[in-house]
Amino acid sequence: MTRVGVNGYGTIGKRVADAVAAQPDMELVGVTKASPNYGAEAAIRRGYDLYAAIDDRVDEFETAGLTPSGTLDDLLRAVDVIVDCAPSGIGARNRAIYASHDTPAIYQGGEDADVADASFNARASGDVGDADSLRVVSCNSTGLSRLLAPLDEAYGVEKARVTLVRRGGDPSETDRGPINDVVPDPATVPSHHGPDVNTVLPNVAVDTAALKAPVTAMHTHSVNVTLETEPSTATVRRLLGDETRLFLIPEVANIDGAGALKDYAADVGRPRGDLWENCVWEESISVQGRDLYLFQNVHQEADVVPENIDAIRALTTDIPREESVALTNETLGIGL
Amino acid sequence: MTRVGVNGYGTIGKRVADAVAAQPDMELVGVTKASPNYGAEAAIRRGYDLYAAIDDRVDEFETAGLTPSGTLDDLLRAVDVIVDCAPSGIGARNRAIYASHDTPAIYQGGEDADVADASFNARASGDVGDADSLRVVSCNSTGLSRLLAPLDEAYGVEKARVTLVRRGGDPSETDRGPINDVVPDPATVPSHHGPDVNTVLPNVAVDTAALKAPVTAMHTHSVNVTLETEPSTATVRRLLGDETRLFLIPEVANIDGAGALKDYAADVGRPRGDLWENCVWEESISVQGRDLYLFQNVHQEADVVPENIDAIRALTTDIPREESVALTNETLGIGL
Amino acid sequence: MTRVGVNGYGTIGKRVADAVAAQPDMELVGVTKASPNYGAEAAIRRGYDLYAAIDDRVDEFETAGLTPSGTLDDLLRAVDVIVDCAPSGIGARNRAIYASHDTPAIYQGGEDADVADASFNARASGDVGDADSLRVVSCNSTGLSRLLAPLDEAYGVEKARVTLVRRGGDPSETDRGPINDVVPDPATVPSHHGPDVNTVLPNVAVDTAALKAPVTAMHTHSVNVTLETEPSTATVRRLLGDETRLFLIPEVANIDGAGALKDYAADVGRPRGDLWENCVWEESISVQGRDLYLFQNVHQEADVVPENIDAIRALTTDIPREESVALTNETLGIGL
Amino acid sequence: MTRVGVNGYGTIGKRVADAVAAQPDMELVGVTKASPNYGAEAAIRRGYDLYAAIDDRVDEFETAGLTPSGTLDDLLRAVDVIVDCAPSGIGARNRAIYASHDTPAIYQGGEDADVADASFNARASGDVGDADSLRVVSCNSTGLSRLLAPLDEAYGVEKARVTLVRRGGDPSETDRGPINDVVPDPATVPSHHGPDVNTVLPNVAVDTAALKAPVTAMHTHSVNVTLETEPSTATVRRLLGDETRLFLIPEVANIDGAGALKDYAADVGRPRGDLWENCVWEESISVQGRDLYLFQNVHQEADVVPENIDAIRALTTDIPREESVALTNETLGIGL
Ligand SMILES: NC(=O)c1ccc[n+]([C@@H]2O[C@H](COP(=O)([O-])OP(=O)(O)OC[C@H]3O[C@@H](n4cnc5c(N)ncnc54)[C@H](O)[C@@H]3O)[C@@H](O)[C@H]2O)c1
Ligand SMILES: NC(=O)c1ccc[n+]([C@@H]2O[C@H](COP(=O)([O-])OP(=O)(O)OC[C@H]3O[C@@H](n4cnc5c(N)ncnc54)[C@H](O)[C@@H]3O)[C@@H](O)[C@H]2O)c1
Ligand SMILES: NC(=O)c1ccc[n+]([C@@H]2O[C@H](COP(=O)([O-])OP(=O)(O)OC[C@H]3O[C@@H](n4cnc5c(N)ncnc54)[C@H](O)[C@@H]3O)[C@@H](O)[C@H]2O)c1
Ligand SMILES: NC(=O)c1ccc[n+]([C@@H]2O[C@H](COP(=O)([O-])OP(=O)(O)OC[C@H]3O[C@@H](n4cnc5c(N)ncnc54)[C@H](O)[C@@H]3O)[C@@H](O)[C@H]2O)c1
Repeated sequence: MTRVGVNGYGTIGKRVADAVAAQPDMELVGVTKASPNYGAEAAIRRGYDLYAAIDDRVDEFETAGLTPSGTLDDLLRAVDVIVDCAPSGIGARNRAIYASHDTPAIYQGGEDADVADASFNARASGDVGDADSLRVVSCNSTGLSRLLAPLDEAYGVEKARVTLVRRGGDPSETDRGPINDVVPDPATVPSHHGPDVNTVLPNVAVDTAALKAPVTAMHTHSVNVTLETEPSTATVRRLLGDETRLFLIPEVANIDGAGALKDYAADVGRPRGDLWENCVWEESISVQGRDLYLFQNVHQEADVVPENIDAIRALTTDIPREESVALTNETLGIGL
Repeated sequence: MTRVGVNGYGTIGKRVADAVAAQPDMELVGVTKASPNYGAEAAIRRGYDLYAAIDDRVDEFETAGLTPSGTLDDLLRAVDVIVDCAPSGIGARNRAIYASHDTPAIYQGGEDADVADASFNARASGDVGDADSLRVVSCNSTGLSRLLAPLDEAYGVEKARVTLVRRGGDPSETDRGPINDVVPDPATVPSHHGPDVNTVLPNVAVDTAALKAPVTAMHTHSVNVTLETEPSTATVRRLLGDETRLFLIPEVANIDGAGALKDYAADVGRPRGDLWENCVWEESISVQGRDLYLFQNVHQEADVVPENIDAIRALTTDIPREESVALTNETLGIGL
Repeated sequence: MTRVGVNGYGTIGKRVADAVAAQPDMELVGVTKASPNYGAEAAIRRGYDLYAAIDDRVDEFETAGLTPSGTLDDLLRAVDVIVDCAPSGIGARNRAIYASHDTPAIYQGGEDADVADASFNARASGDVGDADSLRVVSCNSTGLSRLLAPLDEAYGVEKARVTLVRRGGDPSETDRGPINDVVPDPATVPSHHGPDVNTVLPNVAVDTAALKAPVTAMHTHSVNVTLETEPSTATVRRLLGDETRLFLIPEVANIDGAGALKDYAADVGRPRGDLWENCVWEESISVQGRDLYLFQNVHQEADVVPENIDAIRALTTDIPREESVALTNETLGIGL
Repeated sequence: MTRVGVNGYGTIGKRVADAVAAQPDMELVGVTKASPNYGAEAAIRRGYDLYAAIDDRVDEFETAGLTPSGTLDDLLRAVDVIVDCAPSGIGARNRAIYASHDTPAIYQGGEDADVADASFNARASGDVGDADSLRVVSCNSTGLSRLLAPLDEAYGVEKARVTLVRRGGDPSETDRGPINDVVPDPATVPSHHGPDVNTVLPNVAVDTAALKAPVTAMHTHSVNVTLETEPSTATVRRLLGDETRLFLIPEVANIDGAGALKDYAADVGRPRGDLWENCVWEESISVQGRDLYLFQNVHQEADVVPENIDAIRALTTDIPREESVALTNETLGIGL
């Protein structure tokens, strides 16, 4: 039984907590919050032990009627591993605290790669050896790695060129734009997303160009991959269809975008309408000579969640990767 | 055991079906779909018997590998009551079919009031007598009725004036606008929404002005009610807080809009992130002289769902209204 | 000839500068910018003398090839009046600088009322006496004052209740949201907008409720005014139609929102597609008993511009108000 | 003097009319409208003779107080060439009418290529010979042709791969979505846009993938071109910078998206804020090996306008292409 703590019960943290709680070989010891907002109240409703992420805010929680079980230090003392889900950049600052407790840590993709001993994606990255910390790559990198790894294994990737049409903010982030604009972000090409993919897939050439759009539900990737061989469209569809963390949206489903995808996720009973899989439009997959094209959507709030579970096992156990992935998939119900 | 069929398993129909299935005194016999899209597949995954809404499309379902259990006629033969959840205007056309089977019917608010013997809202409308059909008023009217009924009972409503900032389309309706515009719709004031409220609350004076905005998640109501007496702000907050289908959003929750509301709904485990209750910002409730002001959000996809359940009981049983409401609330988990 | 400087050549400043340049009795001495972006280059293209708003950034302008004519101090020495169009809050900080030069100043609505000796709206506010500084009220307050002043004069306003559906950001402000949300802002009612109207119309009772929507082009006001008398709808339409800074959108025009309004403004040759007038949907104007309803749109970037011109004359000359308004209207081409 | 008529004074037609009116060698005889909305009134304000596009609607115009100068037939009798700017698909239906008058015609990109004798782009397409009709390719194809033609001439294009993030609707089209979604449209790749480019640039290999986003102002193109040679980034920037209908957005301008671009267009005095040029982010232009990347924005309402002017000359005169382009550029003020 691995005892797990989640530091930062926000968009990613709440999902990681639920996923940890669903694992037979893990125990969710507790979660932290920086302030006693609706998320904190909901954590308690779920029966999760709540800790104050910041020591001197314990009072604030008490005033709100949400007495915490302790502080981050208390939580760190009680766990085998901490999953850092604090806002981007805070993870690096938390590092020293984890070190002072000798607590192995998982970080998220908002941190620089050097925050941890290795970057991680369950499908794409190699053996993590004796790393004491791992960093699950960002939502976009996770989505790209899952796609490029099988293509590279099966056909060789000469070069991937991807346009990322990123969501401007998560649904509750009302202070983020743009409104009525598609913004090159960064305006320089290639963007930093390709190099982030290379932290888990070092030998795949991938150039990314990134835009930001006035949507909140999902990222959209317009993907081109020049392959080293010339498979048929049907073969590639089969290859991708066999990947457990890729969902090939069938044409008959009549799903045209993120709205319908999330609706479908809710229809099949997914908690929070989460799509842990890349969602690839099957009819978009097309091979022209050695050029493969496709569109995929990535649920930024969800796709890294199973990867965090597998990262916990990679860091704390000897369970083989495939076994971990199978267990995560089964417990969460991954596979559409 | 009331045997219930749902004709039109779309945005409203799928939610009504789930709610029916959760009732101890009802049996969901089956649901219909007009085409074998993702919703049809999801219905079957849930174990619901699927019928073809349109006779000559049975083939289409079979081609898609979703053989239906029969047609609408077959379904009507097997039920005590049918809930029509077909697109706006189709309900009126379906009326003759239901009549030919002598099947009592519930219609939705997209139909004109005269489609049914009476319009219905569990909190506001009177005894339905021996009606053979009921029409649950629209999402906006449901939201307004729930609010105005207690205010009128407690303080008397001299006049209500409401600006409805309506969502442009549901999340999966990608062919609906506006983009980057707030459109008076209709441009004439008062709009037809006030008279719709009067189908269930005939004696409350209410003028509505309606806009359409580029959002998909919820409607926002900016409400003014001139009362006949002068209660304190605190008293009104208590009155509304005691209503089971009103959720008073506490200030400490730090919920600023529809995104955070839906996030919270998912946090507390609501299926589809549904908010069956009106969501009223507690801090917005303010009495100035006899003028009450407040903001409320209404989840257009969800608020009519418990009303449909109570309408079924009103139409087919002698269960008293309050008992029905309490049972519906308990089985669905209404009350935040 | 009044020599005018504009401090802060941004959204408002560039429009005020153009309007000043169009006046026969004013000379635009120069404009300032804080950084050498596209606006600075465009100012020079127009032949406006450019000054550095912040002393130690002169170098930055030179590097960009846009050598400034001097600094703010230089500009202040050369003008009779300065129009402060710096970002909200910076105006108050600039106050001491203007005072040290004994330069009369006009401020914008982003500043608190006490920044100046009096608040100003050409239609609504009274004589400014011997004020040394004026503050043009905000875009929303300008729009409301123009509407409420004639109504109060003609019929008496018992109480106005207005829902302001505000644009989230101006078209180029890509870092502002919300995306896909309508946010109560502030969540408390009444909002501060009513009191701001009272700085120019102290005796009109007005309660405002404010929302923020994912649009960039215009604000939309849903207006209710309980009058003291009971005019006919036709009479009110005539009254408002006679106001020069109100544009009654005729039904035949088929203009349904801000997009079409801005399109029309461009069609008739308006620079920047600016709508200096309130745009009131004629068909929305409706009197029910003593309750008047209407929808109006306000172009946040433009409606305060003619008011700034009239404020300059009020502060620096003895030209009667009506004469100033007529001159401003004629030179700009106000009246649709 | 070429006498020109414009059939369909809408988004494109009103701009073509203005551009025709600005040419020294053309006379704008008149424009047609299908209904007497704000556009019709604005045409008359501008002094354009208005004709009824549809015979039996003359009455409707008269009721609206906008008596037309005649019908389409009258207009056709008076012109040397007609520019069809009717809604997509209507142009093909109008063809027979033009033929019955023996009037040479220009069509827009909403029509199929076979509507005319040849497709046209001033930069890219070859000599039009003795064509009696031309079709200006669509806004997206115009934007791509202008970019690919010089690249192919200078370096050879091995293959271009472009993701088109298209605006959902024009600013006044409030009935078009999506809201809060980015929709693959079509979901199949490559889209039909590449073949449309090939109607003017038959020998350039270009694959396009098209999305639809909730924006109204501009299209955004994420462009990759694998070249046949390996120029430096600086060389390519110079090459593109020398093209008169490409505007290289300098980094110092701090223009991050369509909002700022349109703001800048208005700043420099462009009527309607029109951007006739492709807008290419200079800093995005980057060569990696033989792979060129860049982002460009295309103002869908404007970029085809100068092309229509050049198409008129190509169809009705012997003026050499370059001379026509220079004249069009000069009269409109093209070049930023
Ligand atoms: N949201 C996404 O789409 C997404 C996707 C993939 C990866 N990520 C990455 O995951 C990480 C978390 O992002 P998020 O979107 O969940 O953020 P979030 O803002 O939703 O949640 C962060 C949580 O951390 C808490 N917090 C704040 N300060 C803290 C501190 N000092 N110590 C501990 N907790 C603190 C907050 O209370 C909040 O609950 C970031 O690195 C981000 O880049 C986010
Ligand atoms: N969506 C909302 O926000 C909302 C809110 C309250 C009330 N309503 C009302 O509920 C009703 C249903 O609306 P919806 O949004 O669920 O629509 P929807 O389009 O999401 O679903 C309608 C369903 O009916 C099926 N259908 C189509 N033709 C049919 C036919 N001839 N017979 C039977 N079924 C047919 C479709 O397959 C679809 O599944 C309408 O009256 C609407 O006005 C909708
Ligand atoms: N934009 C609107 O919709 C709107 C409407 C009405 C009133 N206002 C008010 O007008 C004022 C200006 O707003 P805006 O939208 O034009 O802002 P803006 O950001 O568009 O422009 C502000 C300009 O001031 C310059 N600036 C920055 N720091 C400065 C300084 N220290 N001194 C002088 N100039 C400086 C900037 O370079 C910029 O050009 C604010 O008070 C605002 O509240 C704005
Ligand atoms: N809007 C764009 O972004 C864009 C860009 C490039 C090309 N185009 C193409 O230009 C053409 C016109 O598009 P638009 O956007 O200007 O359309 P629009 O709808 O804005 O304008 C069309 C005009 O045609 C008039 N009209 C309607 N029926 C008519 C008829 N039977 N005969 C003559 N006129 C009629 C209408 O009154 C309207 O003024 C289409 O082929 C379109 O595909 C449009």
